[in-house]
Amino acid sequence: MEVTRTLAKFIVNHRYDDVPEKVRHEAARSFLNWVGCAVGASRHETVENALAALGEFSGPREATVLGRADKLDVMLAALMNGITSHTFDFDDTHLKTVIHPSGPVASAILALSEHKHWNGKDFLHAFILGVEAECRIGNSVYPQHYDAGWHITGTAGVFGAAAAAGRLLGLSEQQMTWALGIAATQSSGLREMFGTMCKPFHPGNAARNGLLAALLAQKNFTSSVQGIEAKRGFANVLSTAFKPGEITDKLGETWEVSLNTYKPFACGIVIHPAIDGCVQLRNEHKLTGDEIEAIALKAHPLVLELTGKKTPQVGLEGKFSVYHSSAVAVIYGAAGEAEYSDAVVRDPKVVALRDKVSATVDKAMHEDQVHVSIKLKNGKTVEKYVEHAVGSLARPMSDADLEAKFKGLCKGILSDGETGKLIGLCWDVGKLKDAAEVARASVPAAQPAGRAAR
Amino acid sequence: MEVTRTLAKFIVNHRYDDVPEKVRHEAARSFLNWVGCAVGASRHETVENALAALGEFSGPREATVLGRADKLDVMLAALMNGITSHTFDFDDTHLKTVIHPSGPVASAILALSEHKHWNGKDFLHAFILGVEAECRIGNSVYPQHYDAGWHITGTAGVFGAAAAAGRLLGLSEQQMTWALGIAATQSSGLREMFGTMCKPFHPGNAARNGLLAALLAQKNFTSSVQGIEAKRGFANVLSTAFKPGEITDKLGETWEVSLNTYKPFACGIVIHPAIDGCVQLRNEHKLTGDEIEAIALKAHPLVLELTGKKTPQVGLEGKFSVYHSSAVAVIYGAAGEAEYSDAVVRDPKVVALRDKVSATVDKAMHEDQVHVSIKLKNGKTVEKYVEHAVGSLARPMSDADLEAKFKGLCKGILSDGETGKLIGLCWDVGKLKDAAEVARASVPAAQPAGRAAR
Repeated sequence: MEVTRTLAKFIVNHRYDDVPEKVRHEAARSFLNWVGCAVGASRHETVENALAALGEFSGPREATVLGRADKLDVMLAALMNGITSHTFDFDDTHLKTVIHPSGPVASAILALSEHKHWNGKDFLHAFILGVEAECRIGNSVYPQHYDAGWHITGTAGVFGAAAAAGRLLGLSEQQMTWALGIAATQSSGLREMFGTMCKPFHPGNAARNGLLAALLAQKNFTSSVQGIEAKRGFANVLSTAFKPGEITDKLGETWEVSLNTYKPFACGIVIHPAIDGCVQLRNEHKLTGDEIEAIALKAHPLVLELTGKKTPQVGLEGKFSVYHSSAVAVIYGAAGEAEYSDAVVRDPKVVALRDKVSATVDKAMHEDQVHVSIKLKNGKTVEKYVEHAVGSLARPMSDADLEAKFKGLCKGILSDGETGKLIGLCWDVGKLKDAAEVARASVPAAQPAGRAAR
Repeated sequence: MEVTRTLAKFIVNHRYDDVPEKVRHEAARSFLNWVGCAVGASRHETVENALAALGEFSGPREATVLGRADKLDVMLAALMNGITSHTFDFDDTHLKTVIHPSGPVASAILALSEHKHWNGKDFLHAFILGVEAECRIGNSVYPQHYDAGWHITGTAGVFGAAAAAGRLLGLSEQQMTWALGIAATQSSGLREMFGTMCKPFHPGNAARNGLLAALLAQKNFTSSVQGIEAKRGFANVLSTAFKPGEITDKLGETWEVSLNTYKPFACGIVIHPAIDGCVQLRNEHKLTGDEIEAIALKAHPLVLELTGKKTPQVGLEGKFSVYHSSAVAVIYGAAGEAEYSDAVVRDPKVVALRDKVSATVDKAMHEDQVHVSIKLKNGKTVEKYVEHAVGSLARPMSDADLEAKFKGLCKGILSDGETGKLIGLCWDVGKLKDAAEVARASVPAAQPAGRAAR
């Protein structure tokens, strides 16, 4: 079975008309969420440090660092946007593989679009095909590959970026086969890096390297034509449990982007049911926090294992505290980046409520379940059982939820008018004359250029 | 044991005065051989294709593509020189690990030197330390890592490039620890790519990515501080047999560059004893080929297994033919790139002699041994037994041999005067005021710029 060539053939020959409307819309949702995450993190220290390191080596400054006045060459912009979009760990998740699919793919082709100016239809199609390649390759080695220590967003992402960029560049079947091979031989990213700036570096690097693969292949730079499936190819060297059918079966019939999910809360997915339950109770009973005596959670064991931090001191620690997360859910009705700032984690009002939260483990629960019981000072108790958290495949965020999240992310960076315009462009990305318009619209009029700008 | 930090500390704090003179000279030999290989392959299709793909994205054109008038930004030049230097597979070999050490390290720091202009002493010191890091990390996972399918020149090379560039950039111990971590999470390169343009791409990519790691770390872009040794770090994810002591034991007491070897012949090492034996008999008996009735070889089984091609049709096939190789060794007294051209492989005179070569297997022989028996038309027979081929650690190429090889590689690209000057600069690299002088001197005055030049 020629896995690499079969996939290459599909990517090169697929027709946009054969993508169902529902799939196109899910792709636009993924893209919108990705742009919001990138703009939201565009002032983060991770981004500033990378820009400071690389700006001076930039080639023609054709491509936008989303949310900033800075421009870089196409490959460096792909790297930077991959970094920004994953810095908050708030981008989309393909739950089957825990790949964050948009980062590597969109970063590569949006930057390249500022050089080549493709129309939105071709852009969205390439995005869908890139996500398809990336997630199918992920499916073929997951979970063993991930368990072994590979950050699958990096290792699979480089294929997605190569596929999408290669499609837009009009690679032949042979060239696409090479592009996937050049991607295979760059596949990298270790889970050991979680908790450091290298985690968001991975989708950025996958974008940069996938783009490089497509550009080289376009000029007939050769690789193995079995980069994925060969004995010493990607799947057999980076995993011990390769399932080639996950790549080649039903190509064009099923769409991985349909399995994409979006986080409503800026923390690990394991606390999402608890936050969801608290937000629901808050809204239903108009809770403010002051009237609360105690909050009792019953949850899956992983919740306490991964997020059992009782007294977080800084924002990042707050993300690993189900106690802090439940408290802000009640007080603010949200758990976005703002609710995980150092200031909010130390806010006496939040601390006071956090200390009233207790959690017990219920082994009978699955990961997506929680039971929240809030005892009020007036003696009353209100309760909520969550079967599936909002943001899960069973209870996806609505388009309006995604817009609200987007607005929260852009606050303080774009004006409300700019945010609204950008949201509109993201929804309509498949209809734009020039996909690069999205990148240009992400730049705030009022912000000065960063230090790497010209 | 903090492996990554221990190595980082060593790289950051080591003093040039503590490098023995013999080690410095071996480093200069490695560097000279590397420059020759890069210049020699600078017109190859692999190089032309990569240049055509990437030239338009170049940033400030500060760094030389060795042997060409083309300049690229530092990171792209590092990539290109890594590619050129390994295109002929004629660069140095650390036999313990089959790493080609100079490619990733020298490509990164020579390009960076054209941006920063360090003196030759600091440059040579960084080169030695980079090779040390790279080969020690290779030692710690070899052979299991290589057997699993990793092209160790790529996977270990990225650390060498990061270490050497980081040393020149003056990274702190903490920053060097990060740089090694950022290198770890980019470690990649599959043996599946052997026989394609991606093989030389690997040292180039290692140079580019190691440089990126050092530049990011310099601006405090963080990674795990246990990128090498952690459970989900490089050594445990990319191998199953990690020996940390190979990295940390006797640092500063032993030098891996001392174990470097250089190929006298432009083909797989397994045919080298046969070529060596034929060249010796040719020179001792003034053979030309016409007077020969038959050539009989007795060799290790691998010789026929890997290079048993009886009737090669093109240059590359000639490299896998012990018959062709023995014939050119007798006729030309050499087996460089020139003797593996399509024209020479098809030359009737060569074909005629090739057909007189027979080879038998002797299982008692080790890989470095051969017995050559040449029967002359006058009835006489001359014989040669080779215990260790020239170019092995036991019988290293002399400085004069390396110069002769260098001249052969530069023929048709540089004038004799230019070649002589470049050789002088390579020997003296440790004494130059500006290490970048080597890069500038590799550019022929008479050659027009390639298509990527400005």
